[in-house]
Amino acid sequence: MTTYKEAGVDVEAGDAAVDRIRPLVRDTHTPGVLADIGSFGSFFELDLEGLDRPVLVSSVDGVGTKVKVARRMGRYETIGQDLVNHCVNDIAVCGARPLYFLDYVGVGDLDPDVAEAFVRGFATACKENGCALVGGEMAEMPDVYGDDNFDLVGAITGVVDKEQILDGAAVAPGDVLLGVPSTGIHTNGYTLARSVLLDRYSVDDRPAALDGETVGEALLRVHRSYLATIRALIENSLVHGCAHITGGGLPGNLRRILPDGCAAEVDYAAWERPPVFDLIQREGTVPEDDMRRTFNLGIGLVAAVSPQQAEVARRVCREQGDEVIEIGRVVSTDASAAPSPDAG
Amino acid sequence: MTTYKEAGVDVEAGDAAVDRIRPLVRDTHTPGVLADIGSFGSFFELDLEGLDRPVLVSSVDGVGTKVKVARRMGRYETIGQDLVNHCVNDIAVCGARPLYFLDYVGVGDLDPDVAEAFVRGFATACKENGCALVGGEMAEMPDVYGDDNFDLVGAITGVVDKEQILDGAAVAPGDVLLGVPSTGIHTNGYTLARSVLLDRYSVDDRPAALDGETVGEALLRVHRSYLATIRALIENSLVHGCAHITGGGLPGNLRRILPDGCAAEVDYAAWERPPVFDLIQREGTVPEDDMRRTFNLGIGLVAAVSPQQAEVARRVCREQGDEVIEIGRVVSTDASAAPSPDAG
Repeated sequence: MTTYKEAGVDVEAGDAAVDRIRPLVRDTHTPGVLADIGSFGSFFELDLEGLDRPVLVSSVDGVGTKVKVARRMGRYETIGQDLVNHCVNDIAVCGARPLYFLDYVGVGDLDPDVAEAFVRGFATACKENGCALVGGEMAEMPDVYGDDNFDLVGAITGVVDKEQILDGAAVAPGDVLLGVPSTGIHTNGYTLARSVLLDRYSVDDRPAALDGETVGEALLRVHRSYLATIRALIENSLVHGCAHITGGGLPGNLRRILPDGCAAEVDYAAWERPPVFDLIQREGTVPEDDMRRTFNLGIGLVAAVSPQQAEVARRVCREQGDEVIEIGRVVSTDASAAPSPDAG
Repeated sequence: MTTYKEAGVDVEAGDAAVDRIRPLVRDTHTPGVLADIGSFGSFFELDLEGLDRPVLVSSVDGVGTKVKVARRMGRYETIGQDLVNHCVNDIAVCGARPLYFLDYVGVGDLDPDVAEAFVRGFATACKENGCALVGGEMAEMPDVYGDDNFDLVGAITGVVDKEQILDGAAVAPGDVLLGVPSTGIHTNGYTLARSVLLDRYSVDDRPAALDGETVGEALLRVHRSYLATIRALIENSLVHGCAHITGGGLPGNLRRILPDGCAAEVDYAAWERPPVFDLIQREGTVPEDDMRRTFNLGIGLVAAVSPQQAEVARRVCREQGDEVIEIGRVVSTDASAAPSPDAG
């Protein structure tokens, strides 16, 4: 096992990968990081200002079989960004500010260039999100991963004041659902996407439908961070709930922020899907329902806002560079239900 | 992907594994867990009592190729305990109390019984350590893990007041090194251990050297937690530094808590090694130096204490059920260094 465990401490001297990784990691450090102490764990001092009742928000996740595309393309940097951004989004939609991130890389054989690329990706995205990369583990396990497989796992910790937790409790019938564009497939649905596209195309092919992009490029597009937009909505008290659209698509993830008695009515014709989704659907003759339950289909984040505030919210998002789309409404399941046998 | 993401929220209905996992997870919950909110992240409210300057201490780790032994034996519960205890020890030696744990299971094909066994192991060890199991991810990726491989990753978060951080800064020449017994190989050195033992024996063999234990049983012994003993030493102000003996053995890990100018002198004859280490060394004709740099050799935790407090420390450990062994001393590297050309 090669370790770069904690940024502040003894890394294995003479290990080329670790020597190259260290400055990348240090460059992400924010004031909370206690970099010169610790060795078995990573230390982060919590700034309590503005936190009456600090609640830690954490998530652990991977990037699914997008790792296979990275391997096929021989590109290992963006997959690190995918992992960090995915984790950041998962806690940002809870109202949390990300504090720090740790990674785990399981791999058959650790090439120093690949190790550096992974960490460069983690570090790039951590910096963009103001999140410190405080440690990680690289485990070389040829008996598990063989020569050419690997897996990436990220663990993120953020903080939110208890009163500021965003959990969808404020979502109500009539709320407008604002969709924020995704960059592509993000990190979910890769088993289906790969089975359809890589059975028919090589990663270097440029099917007309992709407007000049190669299949590999389309599949490797970076899962973007929504942190800035989510923070702007929260800081302007504009949002009742936010959903990060990952595995399960819009139905599976909107469900997580809908209180009892509420449902989401989504107009799937309200936005134009990125061409990669149409290509997958057409080539794989994938039923529309499967598409909706597998992919984000071009909407990576949904914010539920009151109808009165929808225009302001739209403008706030635009200031962050996001052109949002009204993709639907929250409706009452009671109102739309058929009268029960007991009624009247 | 099957997810049991957050204990408090919508798990995929109808998924047998998830239904069985949920009560196990809930049973670990401590007062800080906010179980009824959240869905994209796990929420833990930090109790600030006694914390003037809270420092979060985190670690991410795996269990190395011990996973291959678990697979070979078809026993999936203790490997989850190994993972939790390893993570707990890593932050406990920093002075932190564990708060919560999240897991990641990457697997080719997720058998519900195996999923339940993993989580039962996580939950058992979390309960024993007073650490909440707040979430996890199970990723089914046959293209990465094949039919019969898997990997486990744990992420732990704990807290320590900044003034109470244990980082070895107080370690000084003359300090006594107290060794606390390991249960066996713990989770490091499995590539070597497997290559020696499983080339020569089946997991069911009982070589005479193992005193009636099978090879598989010896290899799967649970990596124990040292939390209770570490906390007792800390709460009695008895310890200058603690090292968890993992990859790198005693030399690699003692180094992490030794200030500049200090070295450890370890008497490797001071304790009796568990028989599995002798068996590996003999059967594999492994040089002694390699043994020392690969395995814990029977000492899983080392506490550096002042010579005046060694007896009290020994008694405090005994009260926690640990018979500690004086395995060496901290010495000054200056005193033992040859006079420099500039001196005198």
